[in-house]
Amino acid sequence: MPSSNNASTPSSPCVLVTGGAGFIGSHTVLELITQGFKVVVVDNLCNSCEEPLRRIEKLSGLTEQIPFHSVDLANIDALRGVFKAHTISSVIHFAALKAVGESVQKPLEYYRNNITGTLNLLEVMLQFGVKNIVFSSSATVYKADYDGNPLRETNELGCTSPYGRTKLYMESIIRDVVDANSGWNAIMLRYFNPTGAHESGTMGEDPQQIPNNLMPYMSQVAVGNLKELRVFGTDYNTRDGTGVRDYIHVMDLAEAHVVALKRLPLHKGYEVFNVGSGTGQTVLEMIEAMSEACGKKIPYVLEGRRPGDIDTILCDPTKSTKELGFQVSRDLKQMCTDLWRWQKNNPNGYK
Amino acid sequence: MPSSNNASTPSSPCVLVTGGAGFIGSHTVLELITQGFKVVVVDNLCNSCEEPLRRIEKLSGLTEQIPFHSVDLANIDALRGVFKAHTISSVIHFAALKAVGESVQKPLEYYRNNITGTLNLLEVMLQFGVKNIVFSSSATVYKADYDGNPLRETNELGCTSPYGRTKLYMESIIRDVVDANSGWNAIMLRYFNPTGAHESGTMGEDPQQIPNNLMPYMSQVAVGNLKELRVFGTDYNTRDGTGVRDYIHVMDLAEAHVVALKRLPLHKGYEVFNVGSGTGQTVLEMIEAMSEACGKKIPYVLEGRRPGDIDTILCDPTKSTKELGFQVSRDLKQMCTDLWRWQKNNPNGYK
Repeated sequence: MPSSNNASTPSSPCVLVTGGAGFIGSHTVLELITQGFKVVVVDNLCNSCEEPLRRIEKLSGLTEQIPFHSVDLANIDALRGVFKAHTISSVIHFAALKAVGESVQKPLEYYRNNITGTLNLLEVMLQFGVKNIVFSSSATVYKADYDGNPLRETNELGCTSPYGRTKLYMESIIRDVVDANSGWNAIMLRYFNPTGAHESGTMGEDPQQIPNNLMPYMSQVAVGNLKELRVFGTDYNTRDGTGVRDYIHVMDLAEAHVVALKRLPLHKGYEVFNVGSGTGQTVLEMIEAMSEACGKKIPYVLEGRRPGDIDTILCDPTKSTKELGFQVSRDLKQMCTDLWRWQKNNPNGYK
Repeated sequence: MPSSNNASTPSSPCVLVTGGAGFIGSHTVLELITQGFKVVVVDNLCNSCEEPLRRIEKLSGLTEQIPFHSVDLANIDALRGVFKAHTISSVIHFAALKAVGESVQKPLEYYRNNITGTLNLLEVMLQFGVKNIVFSSSATVYKADYDGNPLRETNELGCTSPYGRTKLYMESIIRDVVDANSGWNAIMLRYFNPTGAHESGTMGEDPQQIPNNLMPYMSQVAVGNLKELRVFGTDYNTRDGTGVRDYIHVMDLAEAHVVALKRLPLHKGYEVFNVGSGTGQTVLEMIEAMSEACGKKIPYVLEGRRPGDIDTILCDPTKSTKELGFQVSRDLKQMCTDLWRWQKNNPNGYK
C-alpha cells in the first residue's frame, strides 16, 4: 500500500518519475502524491524547472520536499546513484525531447537523448531488479495515412519525424526487454493531444520556446505574449475545413498514468493503450472554446496547409476503457477554463 | 584519386572501416587496398582479431601495417582520436553485433552496441565534416511475410528480432542525418546471405561461437569441428522442401562496397541498394555443392521448421545492377570451393 504522504523512510518503495518536472510529468507527480504514492523525480531541466515541484508540495500539503535529482539519463552513473538512494518499485518514464520540428533539424540530439536515455534507464532497472514501467508514448507512432477512422492500438505504425521514430523505437526496445526478462510489466500509453492545466491555476504547460502545438500557442496569444494565432489549412475534409484532433485534459492524462501504474502488478508482460477522449474538435472550435473561457476574441489568421498534416486524428479509447477501466472525465470547456486560469495567473509560466 | 598503396602521409585522405577486422569488413578492406584506397580500421575485436589485417597486408604486398585502432564505438572520445589522427574522407560502417538469437536474449546489448555506436560515429562525422558513408545493412530489414517474390528496395520494412530492428533503426537514423545536413551522401547496402572466402584460402569467416548461419555451420561440420548439420524444415513450398536463400560470395560483396564508395561523390543524399545474386539455392542444394567442393559427404539430419523461418528469401538485384552497375561474378561452386579452401587450411579460423 502506498503511504499517505511523501515523507517516508528511504527504504519505503517509491515510483521514479523521469521528466517529472515537465508538463505531463509534473501533473502526474501531483496525482501520484494525491493518491498516496511516494515519488522520486529525475529531470535534467533542459525544458523545465524545479518550480512545479514546489507547487505540487503546496497543493498536496507535503511537509517535506519531493525527492528530486537533477540528472540527465545520459549519465548512467548518476542514474545508478538515484536507484541506490531510493527503493524504487516502478518507473514512469516521461523524460524525452518532444519538438517535432526541432527533431528534423537535430535528429542525432533526439536519438541520443531519447533512445540512449531509455537504454540507460532500462539497464539500471535490470541491474536493480526494477521490472515495472509505464512509458509515455504518443499517437504519433501511428502511420499517418490512415483512413480517418479512430486509431486503435492495432493500427499500423510508422512515423514521419525523427521525434516520432524515437517514440516508436523506445516502445520496441521496452517490448524486447520485457520479452527477454521474466517478470517485467510494461504499459505504453499513447497520448493524443494533452492540454488544459491543474484546476488550481498554479500548474500548467510552460514551453521554453515559442510553442509548436495549438493550445499552448493559443494560450500565449490570449495572454498577449504572442500577436495572433495562425490556422494552417482551411480546406480539410472536416465540418469547418480545419483539422480535427482529439484533446485530453492533462489531469485526465495524469490519472491514466496512475491507473496504468496500479495495473502493472496485475498483468504480465507488455501492453499498449491509447489515451484520448474519442471525440474530436476542429481548430476553429478550439478557438471558439478558448475565446469563451477567457472572455475575449483570440486573434487568428487563416493560412495554407502545413506539409505532413492530415484531416483528422482521433483516438479509439475502447481498449483503455474496457481493459484499463479508464475514461476521461473533463470536457472541452474545463480544458479551456483551466488552461486560461493557469495562463492568466502565470503569464510567463513558472518564471 | 586513391593512392596506390596504404603507406601514405597522415594527411592523405582515407576510408575509415568500422568493424574492419570482421568477416565482411576484412574482405572489404582487402578489396579497398587492392583498388588503391588508403584505409584506417576501427574494431573493438569483440567478435574478431587483428590477424586478418596481417593476412591482408601479405596478400596485398603492403610494406606497412594497416592503421588499426582497437576502439569501441561506444567510446566517443577514442573515436574522436581516430578522426584527429587521420584525414578521413568517408566511412564504411560494419561494426555491429549480428547474432539474431543472442539479440533476443540480450536486446539492450544489441541496441546499445549497434544504435549508440552508430549515433557516436555520426556525431563525430558531423564534428569532423565527414559526409560520406556506406552502411552495412541487411535483407533482414524487409517484412518477412512477403509474397515470395524477390525483394525490392521498395518492399515494406519490418523486423522480427532486436538485431533486425537495430539495422532498420540505424538506416533511419542515417537517413534523418542526411536529411538534416547538407552535402551528406549515404548508401545503405542490404545484403542477402554472404558466404565463401577469399580465393587465397588465407581469409574467411571465423565465428567465435557456434555459428547460427547455414554455411559457416556446414563448413565447421565439413572440417570435423561439429558433428552434423541440422536442416530445419523439409515441408516448405520449394523445389525440395527446404528453405531457399540468396547466397553471395563475400568477395562479390566486398566489391559492392567499393562500387558504392566510388558512387558516393556522384550522387546526392540517401540511397538503398540490395546486394544479392537474384538466384536462390535450397539448403539441400547447398549441402550438395559443399559436399562436392570438399570431396566428402556432409552429415546432416532433417528436423522440423524453426519458428520465424519462411520458404524463400530472394533478392531482386535490378536496382543495384542498373544504378550501381554492380553484378555478382562468382557462382555457387566458387563460393563452396573458396569456403572449403579457407576452412581446410584454417580449421580453427585465425587462431
